[in-house]
Amino acid sequence: MARSNNMQDDAATPSDSPSQRLAVAGPPTIRDVARLANVSIGTASKALNAGGRLSKETRENVLRVAREIGYRPNDLAQSLHRAKSRTIGIISNDSFGRFTFPIVEALEERLAEEGIAVFMCNATDDPARERQHLDQLLGKRIDGLVVTARRADKRPPIGPLAHGLPVVYVFSQADDPGALSLLPDDEGGAVLAVAHLAARGRKHIAHVTGPEHFEAVRLRKTGYRAALAEAGLPEIDGFYLSGVWSEAWGREAVAKLFSRRERPDAIFCGNDQIARGALDALREKGVSVPGDVAIVGFDNWDVMTLAARPPLTSIDMNLKALGREAGDSLLDMIAGGANSGVKRRPCSLVVRESS
Amino acid sequence: MARSNNMQDDAATPSDSPSQRLAVAGPPTIRDVARLANVSIGTASKALNAGGRLSKETRENVLRVAREIGYRPNDLAQSLHRAKSRTIGIISNDSFGRFTFPIVEALEERLAEEGIAVFMCNATDDPARERQHLDQLLGKRIDGLVVTARRADKRPPIGPLAHGLPVVYVFSQADDPGALSLLPDDEGGAVLAVAHLAARGRKHIAHVTGPEHFEAVRLRKTGYRAALAEAGLPEIDGFYLSGVWSEAWGREAVAKLFSRRERPDAIFCGNDQIARGALDALREKGVSVPGDVAIVGFDNWDVMTLAARPPLTSIDMNLKALGREAGDSLLDMIAGGANSGVKRRPCSLVVRESS
Repeated sequence: MARSNNMQDDAATPSDSPSQRLAVAGPPTIRDVARLANVSIGTASKALNAGGRLSKETRENVLRVAREIGYRPNDLAQSLHRAKSRTIGIISNDSFGRFTFPIVEALEERLAEEGIAVFMCNATDDPARERQHLDQLLGKRIDGLVVTARRADKRPPIGPLAHGLPVVYVFSQADDPGALSLLPDDEGGAVLAVAHLAARGRKHIAHVTGPEHFEAVRLRKTGYRAALAEAGLPEIDGFYLSGVWSEAWGREAVAKLFSRRERPDAIFCGNDQIARGALDALREKGVSVPGDVAIVGFDNWDVMTLAARPPLTSIDMNLKALGREAGDSLLDMIAGGANSGVKRRPCSLVVRESS
Repeated sequence: MARSNNMQDDAATPSDSPSQRLAVAGPPTIRDVARLANVSIGTASKALNAGGRLSKETRENVLRVAREIGYRPNDLAQSLHRAKSRTIGIISNDSFGRFTFPIVEALEERLAEEGIAVFMCNATDDPARERQHLDQLLGKRIDGLVVTARRADKRPPIGPLAHGLPVVYVFSQADDPGALSLLPDDEGGAVLAVAHLAARGRKHIAHVTGPEHFEAVRLRKTGYRAALAEAGLPEIDGFYLSGVWSEAWGREAVAKLFSRRERPDAIFCGNDQIARGALDALREKGVSVPGDVAIVGFDNWDVMTLAARPPLTSIDMNLKALGREAGDSLLDMIAGGANSGVKRRPCSLVVRESS
């Protein structure tokens, strides 16, 4: 007991005090806290914001150092004091389906790091239901809102009740130039796919895709044409086929393409289901993939790409990165930052055996 | 103006007053409100609880009638006054994947009807992360908690911090006899599948399924054997094959089954991906489905069942109904009701062309 008291006394002597060891001018910063607590800035931030996964010891050590050197948060942590409820809402119109759940998962993870919790609401494309959810969320004094959807097409902006509330649209696009919309770069994704096929020496590249009322279909078509032009390859009559997002359409499209005199040596498909249907149809015709025809899909959905024979090359929309960026943007806006415009983020090419 | 005032006066005369038209003994009930407002009890409940999708007129009419007859809520609406924050949490360990999202969607919809919002947290099987989420949720004074998971296997119950908090496990099973766990009836689902095949005249029914460390695999095997016995059919050596949850395993299992002298005339598959692999392998062998071999899957996942050739008969776990019941149970527990035990809810057979 005496020894323990002595140790505490020792710790309080000037020679050991963190404030003495603090050799910086001006008020202490989170960098000083991190250095003196012997942790990273990220860990210090988590401890100060009561977020993240930290041991009790680490958290208490950081808080003790911060107290001792008189640290007062002056960065994101302080700005986030504007976040009164430390909650945000997500309104989804995708029934939390295949495209939104990686986005929502990454967003929730990013916000949990800052100790901010996420309310989920599913409006399933019903404006009355969306309005009701919005009313409930506003009644709970959310600090911000994320709107996501199944289709990356334009939608009416969230109504006047949300005026002044930070809103981020992700995989969703508000018909409002003042809004921030984060989207995958569909055109760039298509360029990646077609440039890859051209680099593999393919000369007759077809594009089989979904319905043209999807903006993504129109943008990917633009990318397909641009990449053909860039590679000095022709656009061949009948090689662009728009249909539906299904395996059956992929099979049907192959039948159409192979009923022609001029046949493709590669098919860039608008999604992985179409690509899988195309692969099956080609195999059943005895056409070798990738020997005779190379195939690239879109979405990089493992259920399709890994079960396909051969495993499918595909374009990944990096939805988790998009969700994480939506979290970063919303935090910045809650802290007073301004963000607007349509921002398109790059896709990646994932090469497997089909090309 | 005079006329309008007169009408209001008229409405206030005793002969027109709802309280005069109320011919019941005792305090007015929600049934009286509903009858006098000329709406269903459900609509009256929604209006009184500020939930659900109602027109402004309907809601105001119900509230006016309730005021006029002196209605005081004495049922769920009142009991839910115990719900102080009108929020609940969901902790998922499925990354909000294919199985949990219909559950979560239906749960959110049910609770939104009562004006209760849902916090979502994704713990991805990391106990430290789950604990952190739980701390955050408790800090927000949630009224209840739903725990869901990818596997319907037993898990440790939520820790002592949640003591006294209503908790429902759905598609997840707590290793605690006092906990309420809602699960699909895997054994009953298997019985449906095998009884259907037997009713179609199949005599040599194989079962190709996933890994035995899944409780669902063991339960479905029990159901398979029980249904064979019930139909007076033999269990044939080598006709039960446990592997992984993939199309590739479905194809491999067909190769195994057809390398034997005694061949199956039906295969009950443990999920739709295995079933799809089996279908593809049979088609490529020139074996007719359902002519020579009938196939039934499990999960009724449209991505698989509808793209399969032919479209796949499958067992539906009715996950939306499970999510809705989780909502009902949690509301009941928040209102003071007691619920415990493992409750298994029936699956459905969805017949398509493969059987």
